[in-house]
Amino acid sequence: MKAKKGNDKGLFMNPIGYVRTEARELPKHCSISQVEGDLVLEDRYRDGMEGIKPGDRIVVLFAFHESPPFSPEYLKQHPRGDLRRKKQGVFHLCSPLRPNPIGLSVVDVLGVSETVIRVKGIDMRDGTPILDIKPERMFEKQG
Amino acid sequence: MKAKKGNDKGLFMNPIGYVRTEARELPKHCSISQVEGDLVLEDRYRDGMEGIKPGDRIVVLFAFHESPPFSPEYLKQHPRGDLRRKKQGVFHLCSPLRPNPIGLSVVDVLGVSETVIRVKGIDMRDGTPILDIKPERMFEKQG
Repeated sequence: MKAKKGNDKGLFMNPIGYVRTEARELPKHCSISQVEGDLVLEDRYRDGMEGIKPGDRIVVLFAFHESPPFSPEYLKQHPRGDLRRKKQGVFHLCSPLRPNPIGLSVVDVLGVSETVIRVKGIDMRDGTPILDIKPERMFEKQG
Repeated sequence: MKAKKGNDKGLFMNPIGYVRTEARELPKHCSISQVEGDLVLEDRYRDGMEGIKPGDRIVVLFAFHESPPFSPEYLKQHPRGDLRRKKQGVFHLCSPLRPNPIGLSVVDVLGVSETVIRVKGIDMRDGTPILDIKPERMFEKQG
Protein backbone atom coordinates (compact mmCIF):
# COMPACT_ATOMS: atom_id res chain seq x y z
CA MET A 1 0.00 0.00 0.00
CA LYS A 2 1.28 3.45 0.70
CA ALA A 3 4.59 3.98 2.45
CA LYS A 4 4.24 4.35 6.17
CA LYS A 5 6.63 5.73 8.68
CA GLY A 6 7.36 2.86 11.04
CA ASN A 7 8.61 5.20 13.72
CA ASP A 8 10.68 8.32 13.95
CA LYS A 9 13.64 6.61 12.41
CA GLY A 10 12.46 3.79 10.22
CA LEU A 11 10.51 3.61 7.01
CA PHE A 12 8.31 0.84 5.70
CA MET A 13 8.05 0.40 1.97
CA ASN A 14 5.78 -1.60 -0.24
CA PRO A 15 6.67 -2.45 -3.82
CA ILE A 16 4.94 -0.59 -6.62
CA GLY A 17 5.43 -3.55 -8.96
CA TYR A 18 7.98 -6.14 -9.98
CA VAL A 19 10.54 -7.00 -12.65
CA ARG A 20 9.63 -9.60 -15.26
CA THR A 21 12.35 -11.15 -17.38
CA GLU A 22 12.98 -14.51 -18.94
CA ALA A 23 16.73 -14.09 -18.59
CA ARG A 24 18.27 -16.46 -16.08
CA GLU A 25 21.85 -15.34 -16.62
CA LEU A 26 22.20 -11.71 -15.71
CA PRO A 27 25.15 -9.38 -15.97
CA LYS A 28 26.52 -8.10 -12.68
CA HIS A 29 25.67 -4.55 -13.54
CA CYS A 30 23.09 -2.64 -15.54
CA SER A 31 25.77 -0.56 -17.25
CA ILE A 32 26.84 -3.61 -19.25
CA SER A 33 23.45 -5.24 -19.62
CA GLN A 34 21.63 -5.65 -22.92
CA VAL A 35 18.96 -7.82 -21.30
CA GLU A 36 15.37 -6.85 -21.97
CA GLY A 37 12.51 -7.21 -19.57
CA ASP A 38 9.39 -5.59 -18.20
CA LEU A 39 8.68 -3.37 -15.25
CA VAL A 40 5.17 -4.41 -14.29
CA LEU A 41 3.46 -1.85 -12.10
CA GLU A 42 0.40 -2.36 -10.00
CA ASP A 43 -2.70 -1.14 -11.74
CA ARG A 44 -3.37 1.60 -9.21
CA TYR A 45 -0.08 3.28 -10.14
CA ARG A 46 -0.88 3.53 -13.83
CA ASP A 47 -1.40 7.30 -13.77
CA GLY A 48 2.03 7.69 -12.20
CA MET A 49 3.64 6.52 -15.44
CA GLU A 50 2.33 9.41 -17.51
CA GLY A 51 5.10 11.04 -19.49
CA ILE A 52 7.41 8.01 -19.63
CA LYS A 53 8.10 7.17 -23.27
CA PRO A 54 10.39 5.09 -25.49
CA GLY A 55 13.87 6.56 -25.63
CA ASP A 56 13.80 7.72 -22.02
CA ARG A 57 16.33 6.50 -19.53
CA ILE A 58 14.91 5.83 -16.12
CA VAL A 59 16.25 5.00 -12.69
CA VAL A 60 14.75 1.94 -11.05
CA LEU A 61 15.04 1.51 -7.30
CA PHE A 62 14.35 -2.04 -6.25
CA ALA A 63 14.70 -4.40 -3.30
CA PHE A 64 17.50 -6.96 -3.17
CA HIS A 65 14.82 -9.26 -1.87
CA GLU A 66 16.93 -12.40 -1.91
CA SER A 67 19.86 -10.99 0.04
CA PRO A 68 20.50 -12.44 3.49
CA PRO A 69 20.14 -10.03 6.42
CA PHE A 70 23.01 -7.59 6.75
CA SER A 71 25.64 -8.18 9.42
CA PRO A 72 28.85 -6.32 10.33
CA GLU A 73 31.03 -8.84 8.48
CA TYR A 74 29.64 -7.34 5.26
CA LEU A 75 30.81 -3.81 6.04
CA LYS A 76 33.85 -4.54 3.90
CA GLN A 77 33.57 -6.79 0.88
CA HIS A 78 35.64 -7.92 -2.05
CA PRO A 79 34.45 -6.02 -5.15
CA ARG A 80 32.09 -8.28 -7.12
CA GLY A 81 33.06 -11.14 -4.85
CA ASP A 82 36.52 -11.33 -6.43
CA LEU A 83 38.82 -12.53 -3.64
CA ARG A 84 41.86 -11.20 -5.49
CA ARG A 85 40.58 -7.67 -5.10
CA LYS A 86 41.10 -5.72 -1.91
CA LYS A 87 38.09 -5.37 0.33
CA GLN A 88 36.28 -2.05 0.25
CA GLY A 89 33.50 -0.43 2.22
CA VAL A 90 29.98 -1.45 1.29
CA PHE A 91 29.06 2.19 0.58
CA HIS A 92 31.84 2.27 -2.00
CA LEU A 93 30.41 -0.82 -3.72
CA CYS A 94 27.26 -1.86 -5.55
CA SER A 95 26.97 -5.14 -3.66
CA PRO A 96 23.47 -6.48 -2.95
CA LEU A 97 24.55 -7.07 0.65
CA ARG A 98 23.80 -3.67 2.18
CA PRO A 99 22.40 -2.32 5.47
CA ASN A 100 19.31 -1.24 3.55
CA PRO A 101 19.06 -3.61 0.58
CA ILE A 102 18.03 -1.09 -2.04
CA GLY A 103 19.29 -1.66 -5.56
CA LEU A 104 19.55 0.91 -8.31
CA SER A 105 19.66 0.41 -12.05
CA VAL A 106 19.48 2.77 -14.98
CA VAL A 107 17.60 1.28 -17.91
CA ASP A 108 16.41 2.35 -21.36
CA VAL A 109 12.70 2.50 -22.07
CA LEU A 110 11.72 0.55 -25.19
CA GLY A 111 7.97 0.80 -24.87
CA VAL A 112 5.08 1.57 -22.56
CA SER A 113 1.79 -0.29 -22.58
CA GLU A 114 -0.89 -0.28 -19.91
CA THR A 115 1.02 -0.76 -16.67
CA VAL A 116 4.09 -2.33 -18.28
CA ILE A 117 7.32 -0.54 -19.16
CA ARG A 118 9.50 -2.52 -21.55
CA VAL A 119 13.17 -1.80 -20.85
CA LYS A 120 16.70 -2.75 -21.84
CA GLY A 121 19.50 -2.96 -19.32
CA ILE A 122 18.02 -5.39 -16.80
CA ASP A 123 20.36 -6.70 -14.11
CA MET A 124 17.64 -7.66 -11.66
CA ARG A 125 16.25 -11.13 -11.24
CA ASP A 126 12.80 -12.10 -12.37
CA GLY A 127 10.32 -11.20 -9.63
CA THR A 128 12.40 -8.43 -8.08
CA PRO A 129 10.17 -5.94 -6.20
CA ILE A 130 10.31 -2.40 -7.58
CA LEU A 131 10.25 0.43 -5.03
CA ASP A 132 10.40 3.52 -7.21
CA ILE A 133 11.01 4.83 -10.72
CA LYS A 134 12.61 8.21 -11.36
CA PRO A 135 13.68 10.14 -14.45
CA GLU A 136 17.38 9.74 -15.18
CA ARG A 137 17.83 13.45 -15.84
CA MET A 138 18.29 13.70 -12.08
CA PHE A 139 21.90 12.71 -12.56
CA GLU A 140 22.91 15.41 -14.91
CA LYS A 141 25.14 17.76 -13.01
CA GLN A 142 24.84 21.32 -14.14
CA GLY A 143 26.77 23.13 -11.45
CA MET B 1 19.20 -1.75 13.13
CA LYS B 2 19.55 -3.98 10.13
CA ALA B 3 17.01 -3.96 7.36
CA LYS B 4 14.25 -6.47 7.91
CA LYS B 5 11.76 -7.91 5.51
CA GLY B 6 8.39 -6.90 6.89
CA ASN B 7 6.64 -9.59 4.94
CA ASP B 8 6.82 -11.13 1.49
CA LYS B 9 6.15 -7.82 -0.13
CA GLY B 10 7.29 -5.04 2.15
CA LEU B 11 10.64 -3.89 3.38
CA PHE B 12 11.51 -2.04 6.55
CA MET B 13 14.48 0.30 6.49
CA ASN B 14 16.42 2.08 9.17
CA PRO B 15 18.61 5.08 8.42
CA ILE B 16 22.37 4.63 8.37
CA GLY B 17 22.86 8.28 9.33
CA TYR B 18 21.56 11.74 8.59
CA VAL B 19 22.28 14.92 6.63
CA ARG B 20 23.71 17.89 8.47
CA THR B 21 23.66 21.30 6.85
CA GLU B 22 23.29 24.87 8.01
CA ALA B 23 21.58 25.88 4.80
CA ARG B 24 17.93 26.73 5.26
CA GLU B 25 17.28 27.69 1.66
CA LEU B 26 17.87 24.72 -0.58
CA PRO B 27 17.77 24.43 -4.33
CA LYS B 28 15.06 22.19 -5.73
CA HIS B 29 17.54 19.77 -7.19
CA CYS B 30 21.02 18.51 -6.44
CA SER B 31 22.11 19.09 -10.02
CA ILE B 32 22.04 22.84 -9.45
CA SER B 33 23.14 22.86 -5.82
CA GLN B 34 26.40 24.29 -4.57
CA VAL B 35 25.37 23.84 -0.96
CA GLU B 36 27.81 22.08 1.31
CA GLY B 37 26.95 19.79 4.17
CA ASP B 38 27.83 16.59 5.97
CA LEU B 39 26.64 13.04 5.70
CA VAL B 40 26.94 11.82 9.28
CA LEU B 41 26.93 8.06 9.49
CA GLU B 42 26.32 5.99 12.57
CA ASP B 43 29.54 4.85 14.14
CA ARG B 44 28.88 1.17 13.50
CA TYR B 45 28.91 1.83 9.74
CA ARG B 46 32.33 3.45 9.72
CA ASP B 47 34.04 0.50 8.00
CA GLY B 48 31.48 0.70 5.22
CA MET B 49 32.93 4.05 4.13
CA GLU B 50 36.33 2.62 3.25
CA GLY B 51 37.42 3.71 -0.19
CA ILE B 52 35.33 6.88 -0.37
CA LYS B 53 37.63 9.84 -0.95
CA PRO B 54 37.62 13.52 -1.93
CA GLY B 55 36.86 13.97 -5.61
CA ASP B 56 34.43 11.04 -5.70
CA ARG B 57 30.86 11.55 -6.71
CA ILE B 58 28.43 9.50 -4.70
CA VAL B 59 24.76 8.68 -4.83
CA VAL B 60 22.82 9.31 -1.64
CA LEU B 61 19.48 7.61 -1.10
CA PHE B 62 17.48 9.26 1.62
CA ALA B 63 14.00 9.42 3.09
CA PHE B 64 11.66 12.29 2.30
CA HIS B 65 10.81 12.12 5.97
CA GLU B 66 8.68 15.25 6.05
CA SER B 67 6.43 14.32 3.14
CA PRO B 68 2.79 13.65 3.92
CA PRO B 69 1.54 10.11 3.25
CA PHE B 70 1.03 9.34 -0.42
CA SER B 71 -2.47 9.31 -1.81
CA PRO B 72 -3.83 8.75 -5.34
CA GLU B 73 -4.27 12.48 -5.93
CA TYR B 74 -0.49 12.69 -6.13
CA LEU B 75 -0.17 10.18 -8.99
CA LYS B 76 -0.02 13.16 -11.34
CA GLN B 77 1.62 16.37 -10.24
CA HIS B 78 2.65 19.70 -11.70
CA PRO B 79 6.43 19.61 -12.24
CA ARG B 80 8.11 21.41 -9.34
CA GLY B 81 4.69 22.58 -8.17
CA ASP B 82 4.42 25.00 -11.09
CA LEU B 83 0.70 25.18 -11.88
CA ARG B 84 1.44 26.49 -15.38
CA ARG B 85 3.11 23.24 -16.29
CA LYS B 86 1.10 20.21 -17.37
CA LYS B 87 0.72 17.48 -14.79
CA GLN B 88 2.92 14.44 -15.23
CA GLY B 89 3.15 11.04 -13.61
CA VAL B 90 4.99 10.88 -10.31
CA PHE B 91 7.42 8.31 -11.75
CA HIS B 92 8.37 10.84 -14.40
CA LEU B 93 9.12 13.45 -11.73
CA CYS B 94 11.52 13.97 -8.83
CA SER B 95 8.78 15.13 -6.47
CA PRO B 96 9.15 14.26 -2.77
CA LEU B 97 5.53 13.07 -2.81
CA ARG B 98 6.00 9.45 -3.92
CA PRO B 99 4.47 6.05 -3.11
CA ASN B 100 7.78 5.12 -1.47
CA PRO B 101 9.32 8.42 -0.34
CA ILE B 102 12.91 7.68 -1.32
CA GLY B 103 14.99 10.60 -2.52
CA LEU B 104 18.15 10.44 -4.56
CA SER B 105 20.93 12.97 -4.89
CA VAL B 106 24.33 12.88 -6.51
CA VAL B 107 26.89 14.86 -4.55
CA ASP B 108 30.62 15.58 -4.67
CA VAL B 109 32.84 14.37 -1.85
CA LEU B 110 34.98 17.16 -0.38
CA GLY B 111 36.43 15.27 2.55
CA VAL B 112 36.10 12.22 4.78
CA SER B 113 36.75 12.24 8.51
CA GLU B 114 35.74 9.62 11.05
CA THR B 115 32.11 8.90 10.22
CA VAL B 116 31.47 12.17 8.41
CA ILE B 117 31.53 12.70 4.65
CA ARG B 118 31.72 16.37 3.67
CA VAL B 119 29.90 16.94 0.39
CA LYS B 120 28.82 19.61 -2.06
CA GLY B 121 25.49 19.45 -3.88
CA ILE B 122 23.10 19.16 -0.94
CA ASP B 123 19.41 19.49 -1.71
CA MET B 124 18.18 17.69 1.39
CA ARG B 125 17.05 19.40 4.54
CA ASP B 126 19.04 19.33 7.74
CA GLY B 127 18.24 16.11 9.61
CA THR B 128 17.21 14.09 6.57
CA PRO B 129 17.64 10.34 7.23
CA ILE B 130 20.13 8.65 4.91
CA LEU B 131 19.23 5.16 3.71
CA ASP B 132 22.19 4.24 1.52
CA ILE B 133 25.30 5.55 -0.21
CA LYS B 134 26.52 4.14 -3.52
CA PRO B 135 29.33 4.96 -5.91
CA GLU B 136 28.20 7.14 -8.78
CA ARG B 137 30.02 5.04 -11.38
CA MET B 138 26.87 2.92 -11.39
CA PHE B 139 25.32 5.37 -13.79
CA GLU B 140 27.90 5.15 -16.49
CA LYS B 141 26.36 3.28 -19.37
CA GLN B 142 28.85 1.28 -21.30
CA GLY B 143 26.62 -0.74 -23.59
